[in-house]
Amino acid sequence: MDKTDLFFMNEALVEAQKALVLNEVPIGAVIVEEGQILARGHNLRETLGDPTAHAEVIAIREAAIKRGGWRLQDMTIYVTLEPCPMCAGAMINARLERLVYGASDPKAGAAGSLMNIVKDQRLNHRLEVTSGLLADQAGELLKHFFQRKRSFQ
Amino acid sequence: MDKTDLFFMNEALVEAQKALVLNEVPIGAVIVEEGQILARGHNLRETLGDPTAHAEVIAIREAAIKRGGWRLQDMTIYVTLEPCPMCAGAMINARLERLVYGASDPKAGAAGSLMNIVKDQRLNHRLEVTSGLLADQAGELLKHFFQRKRSFQ
Repeated sequence: MDKTDLFFMNEALVEAQKALVLNEVPIGAVIVEEGQILARGHNLRETLGDPTAHAEVIAIREAAIKRGGWRLQDMTIYVTLEPCPMCAGAMINARLERLVYGASDPKAGAAGSLMNIVKDQRLNHRLEVTSGLLADQAGELLKHFFQRKRSFQ
Repeated sequence: MDKTDLFFMNEALVEAQKALVLNEVPIGAVIVEEGQILARGHNLRETLGDPTAHAEVIAIREAAIKRGGWRLQDMTIYVTLEPCPMCAGAMINARLERLVYGASDPKAGAAGSLMNIVKDQRLNHRLEVTSGLLADQAGELLKHFFQRKRSFQ
């Protein structure tokens, strides 16, 4: 495993833990430009009451503000869970160069599991993809969250 | 054609014209709850420098703020162009009940053209869909925009 990728995926896991503290489904993301973190995001769907406030969308919007434009070419997004269709589509729309994700999502994954939006040759952009990085840690966080949630029901 | 649907699609076209005035790709959307427009949006990608600032995402975020939560069940979204994967995914995530769109998008349409995210049985929500409503008007706006753009290049 690439050490640089591991470093940044760890930072995405830090973001996921911030979501966990807020009782949000623990998913985190960071966007990296030239070896530096430009933007960070964690799931805030319940906190903001916003169905689009997934970790990836929050990070993409912050990166675009910081870059001063919507094209995020040459940037890599690290996310702890495989993106859903909305987030995979947002990555295409942002022209991100590369996606690194942790755990696969058999229920809604749109980067290989249910569909593969980020590799679709018919769309006007595609991403390089690396998957499975620190997948166990990302999966444990999610498992812990859902177990805790069930025990309070 | 249903008169109520025509009325609201006309409002979505009004939104698309607002985008045109701003030199944005002219796409507009409105979200309707119990026969009333709850939220409106038009494409602001260039103006905001935000790759997620499509008409639909803007309207969905506004509707969620107004409702005070991310679940937009019982609401219908009217949009002048078939949604891209990001926007179709956002509609699923928002649990919108129904999608009415105008023109089809053979290049990025994710509600029937390239894929059909809003009808995917494997995802945890699906929308009722009506397509082709005032498609000619929506298409003319887009054609006019791209012709004007080319003539200035």
